[in-house]
Amino acid sequence: MNITVWNEFRHEKLNAAVAAIYPEGIHHVIAKGLQQEGVNVQTATLDEVEHGLTDKVLRETDVLIWWGHKAHEEVEDEIVQKIYQRVLEGMGMIVLHSGHFSKIFKKLMGTSCDLKWRQVGEKERLWVVDPSHPIVAGIGEYIELEKEEMYGEFFDIPEPESLLFLSWFAGGEVFRSGCTYSRGKGKIFYFRPGHETYPTYHNPQIIKVIRNAAQWAAPIVGPQLQFGKTDPLEKL
Amino acid sequence: MNITVWNEFRHEKLNAAVAAIYPEGIHHVIAKGLQQEGVNVQTATLDEVEHGLTDKVLRETDVLIWWGHKAHEEVEDEIVQKIYQRVLEGMGMIVLHSGHFSKIFKKLMGTSCDLKWRQVGEKERLWVVDPSHPIVAGIGEYIELEKEEMYGEFFDIPEPESLLFLSWFAGGEVFRSGCTYSRGKGKIFYFRPGHETYPTYHNPQIIKVIRNAAQWAAPIVGPQLQFGKTDPLEKL
Amino acid sequence: MNITVWNEFRHEKLNAAVAAIYPEGIHHVIAKGLQQEGVNVQTATLDEVEHGLTDKVLRETDVLIWWGHKAHEEVEDEIVQKIYQRVLEGMGMIVLHSGHFSKIFKKLMGTSCDLKWRQVGEKERLWVVDPSHPIVAGIGEYIELEKEEMYGEFFDIPEPESLLFLSWFAGGEVFRSGCTYSRGKGKIFYFRPGHETYPTYHNPQIIKVIRNAAQWAAPIVGPQLQFGKTDPLEKL
Amino acid sequence: MNITVWNEFRHEKLNAAVAAIYPEGIHHVIAKGLQQEGVNVQTATLDEVEHGLTDKVLRETDVLIWWGHKAHEEVEDEIVQKIYQRVLEGMGMIVLHSGHFSKIFKKLMGTSCDLKWRQVGEKERLWVVDPSHPIVAGIGEYIELEKEEMYGEFFDIPEPESLLFLSWFAGGEVFRSGCTYSRGKGKIFYFRPGHETYPTYHNPQIIKVIRNAAQWAAPIVGPQLQFGKTDPLEKL
Repeated sequence: MNITVWNEFRHEKLNAAVAAIYPEGIHHVIAKGLQQEGVNVQTATLDEVEHGLTDKVLRETDVLIWWGHKAHEEVEDEIVQKIYQRVLEGMGMIVLHSGHFSKIFKKLMGTSCDLKWRQVGEKERLWVVDPSHPIVAGIGEYIELEKEEMYGEFFDIPEPESLLFLSWFAGGEVFRSGCTYSRGKGKIFYFRPGHETYPTYHNPQIIKVIRNAAQWAAPIVGPQLQFGKTDPLEKL
Repeated sequence: MNITVWNEFRHEKLNAAVAAIYPEGIHHVIAKGLQQEGVNVQTATLDEVEHGLTDKVLRETDVLIWWGHKAHEEVEDEIVQKIYQRVLEGMGMIVLHSGHFSKIFKKLMGTSCDLKWRQVGEKERLWVVDPSHPIVAGIGEYIELEKEEMYGEFFDIPEPESLLFLSWFAGGEVFRSGCTYSRGKGKIFYFRPGHETYPTYHNPQIIKVIRNAAQWAAPIVGPQLQFGKTDPLEKL
Repeated sequence: MNITVWNEFRHEKLNAAVAAIYPEGIHHVIAKGLQQEGVNVQTATLDEVEHGLTDKVLRETDVLIWWGHKAHEEVEDEIVQKIYQRVLEGMGMIVLHSGHFSKIFKKLMGTSCDLKWRQVGEKERLWVVDPSHPIVAGIGEYIELEKEEMYGEFFDIPEPESLLFLSWFAGGEVFRSGCTYSRGKGKIFYFRPGHETYPTYHNPQIIKVIRNAAQWAAPIVGPQLQFGKTDPLEKL
Repeated sequence: MNITVWNEFRHEKLNAAVAAIYPEGIHHVIAKGLQQEGVNVQTATLDEVEHGLTDKVLRETDVLIWWGHKAHEEVEDEIVQKIYQRVLEGMGMIVLHSGHFSKIFKKLMGTSCDLKWRQVGEKERLWVVDPSHPIVAGIGEYIELEKEEMYGEFFDIPEPESLLFLSWFAGGEVFRSGCTYSRGKGKIFYFRPGHETYPTYHNPQIIKVIRNAAQWAAPIVGPQLQFGKTDPLEKL
């Protein structure tokens, strides 16, 4: 399996507090966490040529992981269109945290993907609400994060196909924090945590979830889909 | 309740066979079928100014019904964006037949909305698979249409929130023919039948379904949604 | 529409604190809240003959509302079987609070319906997560209850067809508090709040939700379902 | 992974036509088809002691496959209760064909699981409608079976969590033929084909689906679920 971890990689260069937590970038920490036998992990970032997502990279990527925040608008529409096409063809996609507002996530969802937020560093507790799902394998009843940005409902997404995590926030809000979708032959997982000023991606349970999600989202050798004009299979 | 029936209204002007069935346009027949006490029905068509969908019309429309086929590309992006915004705000939307390939439906779904098709006039039988849903009120176990265009799976749509009708086609295919979705505060119903060369919208059961769907899709006085930065509700 | 509000009606007789809040029983307060033009509301309680749910009552009931807690085991299996049959035939059912552990709810769900709980009187905030649904009409972004019993995840229910409310609890838990299901021709709504020692059913927003739910759950004139051996519709 | 294939195993002993197709029983053919490295397959049948499903067998079974038809009533309630408990604890379950009317399936679904049927040996075509799902890996756009018993809608089951196959029948009906559910920590797959008088389980594509389903339904090391009275996680 080939995983590509994409990161905007701007906060880490501009904000010393972020750089202290993720000196080589958020993508680097996630990529390291995903390395295991049989898995090939590479990274790509906004400021590379074609954002690091050339046709070759996309064609060979089984699962694309996405972290973006302040520069969503700088992602070129042409690249977004190519990612979209690859998802419909079967590429898995894991959208993290502020990636909820990325062009590609909004395009795949068909909604605004807007939400409430507050960045004061409060406690978040992610409760598992589907204990049968492979993405929660190895996780306890909840994951607790001492300090995170708050995201609150209403989260303007389509009804998830499976809802895996619900977040409780100290400030009084809740959030649908782990949501699965399918689009064409592709599987998508949105996972809420991961504000850049907190060491969330150093948390082994968070990495475990992303790792499970990558396994789950990997493409299957599914049917060769045919569209358009078609002859009858029965005599008419 | 204010319903606006939108029709591309081109086939009826160019094709005598279609004009024979729908002399005043498909929209006219549907609009007539929807008239009842407490419901105000108007129509709009592609070739009107702003496709008949001015800001005022859209603002006052509770449910928009959409039939388009050969001129999807002529619908201006700006109007599509306005319809999209209104759906998220609560306007109901019923997309009919070849409207599956309209810009607005693809934008709301986040998929290609592609499918198989065959236009030879074969038998279609729409089976009810959710007999608890208000959209099937007054319908029997199935609706039979002697001649229709075939649409076949795989239909590239997101998993429906509720699946109400499954079509059987004489040529050997099946199709998810009645699908509901929600997007933001808006409710959407896709309903398959209605090729322009057949008198499908003269069928009282088909009209009954569209009528039920309009009632179902009408906006509710729901919560005033707030997005963006928000203060805590609890002391932190 | 005929609504029957069923209540175990034991706490009110045995516990002065409960009687102070609901002197004539929880069912009485709910029934009063549901009265409006075109709606006929009656009540039934455990200690009546056949628990007040005779064949005639059940046959004429469009929506059955259920509150039970300490005497689930005293509800006779034969009556449970009759209610079950009526739900499959189209009777709507609204299960409140501790009714999660009633025989009828467990039978309809196919799961244990178990959960976490704590009865110390803490704050609950029910967030709306489906602002398009008729059951939340007239409700704001959330409902706040100063004191309630806590119910926490994992709540062992099947994946809801629509998830309408998520609860935040001061003690750190979350809960799927408003869940819809369909079973046969019947529609079911589970709504969490309503511990007997708090005036929850005097809250106009809570009553509003139950009222909306009764409208939503009312049976439709759906298809006459046929089961068993059947002749082909096409020549074989 | 430990798979147990359970079969009623009566038709094969009483009907020469069935015995000709499945001389050692349906369970034997399915079991053989599932054998592969890392998978341990055993069988169990109705007439064994405790139907072959002792506490030890159930405790060690990861996925239980179920074929029954004419003797559903002979399956003891106590064993059904044990299977049910094991599903909630995480054991996967694959229910085949006429198993739709088994005690265990009805108990897990919460509905009658009734349907239409016709046994004349007509053509069935199972269309894939979720090409992203691991259960359809290696399958084309459809599976065609020359002769099968017909099952027709309305199929009285809860709305599937994922709908994978839709059947077309020559006689004019359709059917939701591949449905997934979760119950507690357990995953369930219902798969329609497999009348005893046809060689359906000798079809490599049918076996492929069952094989995929067993992989999908295998339990994960999920959260240790806690129910009942619980202390607050936050200071109240």
